[in-house]
Amino acid sequence: MSAPIDFYFDFSSPYGYFASHRIDAIAERHGRAVNWRPYLMGAVMKITGARPIPERPLIAAYGRRDMERTARHLGVPWQMPEPFPVATVAACRAYYWVLDRDPARAKRLASVLYAAYFAEGHNIGEAEVVITLATAAGIERAALEAALQDPAVKQRLRVETDAAIARGVFGSPFFIVDGEPFWGNDRLAEVDEWLRAGGW
Amino acid sequence: MSAPIDFYFDFSSPYGYFASHRIDAIAERHGRAVNWRPYLMGAVMKITGARPIPERPLIAAYGRRDMERTARHLGVPWQMPEPFPVATVAACRAYYWVLDRDPARAKRLASVLYAAYFAEGHNIGEAEVVITLATAAGIERAALEAALQDPAVKQRLRVETDAAIARGVFGSPFFIVDGEPFWGNDRLAEVDEWLRAGGW
Repeated sequence: MSAPIDFYFDFSSPYGYFASHRIDAIAERHGRAVNWRPYLMGAVMKITGARPIPERPLIAAYGRRDMERTARHLGVPWQMPEPFPVATVAACRAYYWVLDRDPARAKRLASVLYAAYFAEGHNIGEAEVVITLATAAGIERAALEAALQDPAVKQRLRVETDAAIARGVFGSPFFIVDGEPFWGNDRLAEVDEWLRAGGW
Repeated sequence: MSAPIDFYFDFSSPYGYFASHRIDAIAERHGRAVNWRPYLMGAVMKITGARPIPERPLIAAYGRRDMERTARHLGVPWQMPEPFPVATVAACRAYYWVLDRDPARAKRLASVLYAAYFAEGHNIGEAEVVITLATAAGIERAALEAALQDPAVKQRLRVETDAAIARGVFGSPFFIVDGEPFWGNDRLAEVDEWLRAGGW
């Protein structure tokens, strides 16, 4: 089996959410696994100077329309979250803590968190909401509560985010396939083609 | 025949250049014409606060790589221009002046200008270069030189750019299909599908 695909995303990213519904199936067609790697886009934005979509004139209106259109097109549940965006530190820390114990459960948790935020009206920017959702997904509450305050877990997320930036990751979703970077949900068809062709 | 597709672009935009090789064929498949509408992205950037790709940390390196990869993928001639980006006031004015006299020739001129900048090493930011290229394309030099200084021609470009912004256009390429906006060369497959399906 060839190397896994790295799927970088922010839990507060609409296009990351859309891509989360697609990347595993694309990878599977080509015999690839996918490493889901949430990180903090806020750290990147400090470097790039980019601002969240709702704060960008012209782009904000287009973004809102495009998100609804993309959700309809993909058949993915969608409800524009409010507030948007939110800080996803707790969501990311929970993810990596679960990942180190049970990778399959971590991916399920990521999907639960995404659906909660982009389809079910839950504010995953709040640690308590993350904990409640994780508990419903079978994760032990007390252990998770402790983990979210654990300096080692906090450091784990910092290292992941720094490593992503060091690899040139700056968006969500962002894919790295055999060292080749692809930015955006709208590049998934190209990722699929790249995997089939072995590059060009 | 249904309404034409509006194709907005900046003459200094790599992805506008790539899209210029594709949009007419896509439109033709669906019995549509295309209005090519160059405008000044600089005017939009004053509103959105966006900066040119080479000035954006992380995105600059990705952009350079992605442009080369996209050119290879599409089989489109490519040579990263230097300087980049350039002001395209003269190119746009020449385009609209020719458009009002001979629309087919205007589209050919646009393709000549794009190829000159992105494949042949000519700096179309200089009015003299635009004039020389236009002359080689059969446009009368003296008349074009006069047109580039004509207040009515200058005003025509201002009106086009203002009208684009008023319609919500902010990128290059940017397409409007029956009122529906699509941003980016990587959305052309979606434009194609939208035309086939009549929306979703």
